[in-house]
Amino acid sequence: MAQPIDFYFDFSSPYGYFMSEKIDGVAAGFNRKVRWHPILLGVVYAVSEGKPLVDLPLKGDYARRDMARTARFHGIDFHPPTPFPIATQAAARAYYWLHDQDCTLARQFAHAAYRAYFQRGQNISDPAQVVAVAQTLGVDGAALAAALQTDPVKARLKTACADAIAKGVFGSPYVVIDGEAFWGVDRLPQIERWLDTGRF
Amino acid sequence: MAQPIDFYFDFSSPYGYFMSEKIDGVAAGFNRKVRWHPILLGVVYAVSEGKPLVDLPLKGDYARRDMARTARFHGIDFHPPTPFPIATQAAARAYYWLHDQDCTLARQFAHAAYRAYFQRGQNISDPAQVVAVAQTLGVDGAALAAALQTDPVKARLKTACADAIAKGVFGSPYVVIDGEAFWGVDRLPQIERWLDTGRF
Repeated sequence: MAQPIDFYFDFSSPYGYFMSEKIDGVAAGFNRKVRWHPILLGVVYAVSEGKPLVDLPLKGDYARRDMARTARFHGIDFHPPTPFPIATQAAARAYYWLHDQDCTLARQFAHAAYRAYFQRGQNISDPAQVVAVAQTLGVDGAALAAALQTDPVKARLKTACADAIAKGVFGSPYVVIDGEAFWGVDRLPQIERWLDTGRF
Repeated sequence: MAQPIDFYFDFSSPYGYFMSEKIDGVAAGFNRKVRWHPILLGVVYAVSEGKPLVDLPLKGDYARRDMARTARFHGIDFHPPTPFPIATQAAARAYYWLHDQDCTLARQFAHAAYRAYFQRGQNISDPAQVVAVAQTLGVDGAALAAALQTDPVKARLKTACADAIAKGVFGSPYVVIDGEAFWGVDRLPQIERWLDTGRF
């Protein structure tokens, strides 16, 4: 069995959201599984000198158009949310807390959180909204709300971000296949060829 | 007849080089012409707060791999040159000087200059190398060398950069089709769909 693919993303990243709607299906076509790793772009950008796209002169205006067009190109439901971007500690911590109990549920939560924000504008920077999303999947809301405040859950996300930086992750989405890194949903054609042919 | 497509690029941009090998053919498939506009990324970056990719922490290492892989993906001959990036005033000025005399020759020169740098490592930041490239196309080398020093030729490039910035150009390659902007050679699939279907 081939190694799983690693998929790094921030819950506030539109291109990460687009990739989240595609990567499992693409991987399955080549009998590959995907490990999901939510991270905080703010932490990564402190190392890689990145900035939120929409804050950049000229590029920000382009990015807003490109996000919407890229969603249409891929046939993905996308409604630019406000506020944007947002802090995603709560969503990422919830993901890891769920993952340590039930990895399938964690994957469902990740999809639900991304769709809540990018399809319906639900502000998942608010821990209460994160809990509400999880509750739609049958999660115990009080237990999750309490867990989000605990040091081990906070430490879990810190470790995940540090691990990602150590592996060279500098943006979202960032996909690693057998040691080869692909940044951006626009690398899907190269990802598919890599999975199909191996190194090219 | 539909409007021509506008293609902005810096002669030191690998992704611009890849686009230069593709855009005329893609456009021709939809009965469209392309206007080429060499610009200076340094001038553009002063406005858009851009930086050369390879200077960025983490992203620089990725970019070097991605450039080579993207060339292989598209089947384009590419040998990462040293030094890189380089100043491209001389090449861009030569392009506009040639274009004002013979637009077909200017296009041939642009291909020749890009290939000289990215296939054979010829340092086209040196005006003598630019002249040498042009001479392979039958251009009068002495006339070109003299022209590169003149104020009108320098002003021509300055105007081209200012025009590009005014149109929102912030990177290379940057393609505009009927007012819609596409940044990066990775937008080729979207460019093809846009040309095929119109707005999507």
